[in-house]
Amino acid sequence: MSATARGSLFADIPRELPAELTTVLAVGGGMRIERIVSRGHSSAEGGWYEQDEDEWVLLVTGAARLDLAHGEPIELEAGDWVELPAGLRHRVAWTAPDRDTVWLAVFRSADAYARSASR
Amino acid sequence: MSATARGSLFADIPRELPAELTTVLAVGGGMRIERIVSRGHSSAEGGWYEQDEDEWVLLVTGAARLDLAHGEPIELEAGDWVELPAGLRHRVAWTAPDRDTVWLAVFRSADAYARSASR
Repeated sequence: MSATARGSLFADIPRELPAELTTVLAVGGGMRIERIVSRGHSSAEGGWYEQDEDEWVLLVTGAARLDLAHGEPIELEAGDWVELPAGLRHRVAWTAPDRDTVWLAVFRSADAYARSASR
Repeated sequence: MSATARGSLFADIPRELPAELTTVLAVGGGMRIERIVSRGHSSAEGGWYEQDEDEWVLLVTGAARLDLAHGEPIELEAGDWVELPAGLRHRVAWTAPDRDTVWLAVFRSADAYARSASR
């Protein structure tokens, strides 16, 4: 018997994936950890993410390209991580069409960050 | 030009690894993200971790076994994650001797968690 929550990033991925799949793995303390599975999905054309939260994201497997509103595109392969501070306009421009791209995203409320920064 | 910090979990791993290697990838807001690289390393015999922080840890590549002071051992392979709440006595009993085991660990101060829980 174990009191710990656990799982696999590669479990429970449906055969058909009409849209990106987001699964919350852990939450609390102004933080949220999500698995995101993409299979050729990208952000809507011209659509930018501009989040209230700081995001730290790891590409666990697959391949992707992020576009930034102000900056060079970022090519990501397995093991690559990038920090996306709150308010940074970005979009997923491309993910590999022929296999799953699995992301691990850690979101942190800007509120939590401000509390820390003001100490 | 990009304002974002980035890197690869598989970069900057030394040829020789006499001890586990810990690299802080991001920190702030009561949270810390670390890469840990093991190569056959385990916790000292009879030594238990009993942390002040909540830990969420992902085995990115390699293989490992965690022992819990109170609970069944946990075998981990690539993609497996486990939550280790603050105070849970655990140790790394084994990591693969013939290849790198790369962990991604997200630590969250119990303080931050308490703030959230008391809202």
